[in-house]
Amino acid sequence: MDISSFIYSLDLIGVGVFAISGALAAAEKRLDILGFLLFGTITGIGGGTLRDLLLHTGEVFWIGDTAYLWMCIGAGVATWFLAHLFVSLRRVLLWADALGLALFSVLGTQKALAFDAPLLVAIGMGMMTATFGSLIRDGLLGRPPVLLEPDIYVTAAALGAVSYVALESQPWAREAALPLAVAAAFSLRAAAILFDLRLPKYPPE
Amino acid sequence: MDISSFIYSLDLIGVGVFAISGALAAAEKRLDILGFLLFGTITGIGGGTLRDLLLHTGEVFWIGDTAYLWMCIGAGVATWFLAHLFVSLRRVLLWADALGLALFSVLGTQKALAFDAPLLVAIGMGMMTATFGSLIRDGLLGRPPVLLEPDIYVTAAALGAVSYVALESQPWAREAALPLAVAAAFSLRAAAILFDLRLPKYPPE
Amino acid sequence: MDISSFIYSLDLIGVGVFAISGALAAAEKRLDILGFLLFGTITGIGGGTLRDLLLHTGEVFWIGDTAYLWMCIGAGVATWFLAHLFVSLRRVLLWADALGLALFSVLGTQKALAFDAPLLVAIGMGMMTATFGSLIRDGLLGRPPVLLEPDIYVTAAALGAVSYVALESQPWAREAALPLAVAAAFSLRAAAILFDLRLPKYPPE
Repeated sequence: MDISSFIYSLDLIGVGVFAISGALAAAEKRLDILGFLLFGTITGIGGGTLRDLLLHTGEVFWIGDTAYLWMCIGAGVATWFLAHLFVSLRRVLLWADALGLALFSVLGTQKALAFDAPLLVAIGMGMMTATFGSLIRDGLLGRPPVLLEPDIYVTAAALGAVSYVALESQPWAREAALPLAVAAAFSLRAAAILFDLRLPKYPPE
Repeated sequence: MDISSFIYSLDLIGVGVFAISGALAAAEKRLDILGFLLFGTITGIGGGTLRDLLLHTGEVFWIGDTAYLWMCIGAGVATWFLAHLFVSLRRVLLWADALGLALFSVLGTQKALAFDAPLLVAIGMGMMTATFGSLIRDGLLGRPPVLLEPDIYVTAAALGAVSYVALESQPWAREAALPLAVAAAFSLRAAAILFDLRLPKYPPE
Repeated sequence: MDISSFIYSLDLIGVGVFAISGALAAAEKRLDILGFLLFGTITGIGGGTLRDLLLHTGEVFWIGDTAYLWMCIGAGVATWFLAHLFVSLRRVLLWADALGLALFSVLGTQKALAFDAPLLVAIGMGMMTATFGSLIRDGLLGRPPVLLEPDIYVTAAALGAVSYVALESQPWAREAALPLAVAAAFSLRAAAILFDLRLPKYPPE
């Protein structure tokens, strides 16, 4: 598999896990099947859509390639029939969200660099791609936003974006930059979930 | 009247009824006159604006043609002076919203097809054009979103979009595809309001 | 200093004061340092970003020039360390917001005119540039939106936009149109804060 098919696969997986997290949030609110599809789709493609609009990529990624929408629809339907198998919806949602966060923070940064964005802008794009979908999911559903909980969430997205930019600029690390950065972001987020890590709140000491 | 003027008129009517529904929501919250204009405008043009941005239509529909903004302003002012004539604001808002939903689900699909979007994307665009304006209206006003109520709302938008795509592809039905699809979406939404139809909630039996 | 550097400086100042208002809102919610940066950035660049997307300016203003993002980051960090010096966060936030409102209502209108938008559209763009950042800041944080308080807020943005359009069309006033319109919008908003001015609420007498 060449690198662009690999990235495409990761991108589809990212859309799928975010779509599942959106559908699980719909399950928490006991919506109907179209609510599952709607929130799955918004969460799955929201961050990347904003990224593509801001970068003027010429075409938003899911407009020309319907695989992304089918992935969201499939994730929504699968969640509708399978979500009751899980003891704690909230727990599964947290982990699906963590995987999507790690993938999109890196893939968003990479796409911004491919469109010649300055480094700081690329890092911001990665963070935004990773967090925007869940932000609107939670905003629309009236849930307390994952993003505002004081555990390491935006920080993990920042780590993914920054470590990708750093590794990608080193000739010896370029090949492995993408998986390493995804692993770094996911590990930090996982540690935050498991050990309840958090940054100090305002006011600082 | 040729077909493009007919579509233009329907589009203006759709903007107008959604603007009225936005201004009525402002009335519920007892805002001032500028709040009426603001929420009328956001609700009237919100869905179509997102559609045009995503489709890269070259120009957002209300930028070059001020008739749309004047329609929103007129609807806001008219609602300010006339809304007290209605016994139940909420009831009128529901019906204005239903008409806008039916019109925009079909017109949004049609515009996406005109820009060569795949069928699934065009259906999604129609549903989004029809629901996005009221979604942000309700989000900004802190109202329980119409969209999350378990009655047939997104479903009616989906019916409008799907039936337009189906009819438009048949030579014998093309001429009448637009009014028929609007009628189908409106009838389903009207039945949902009158008979309190709803899809089953999660979890499914 | 020529006129375009002057406008650039005002634009940066506007982004900075809105970023401070966003970071202060994060302080109210006792977020961590990344929350300060996130809400500073969203509030600082949100309105102008939407304006540039809608106007099809070719490039969103902060993508090619990282000074804007650094301004947001600087404002967020400064607020983190300095906000405790203020007795009333809410009071400072109101004034930072008022200055940003005045600057962006005029600068947004000016940019829209530069892209040949019709007058009414340019006025709407100015109002939107001035209010959208604080609207999403408040929406995401679950604060009661500044925008919906019945004091003169959107009205001050409208005054800034309208007076800029009026002055700019007069040969004798063109030079001074920008500072005069900013002063008009700021004075009206300041008077509204100090004297608790407000428009009549619905229903009208």
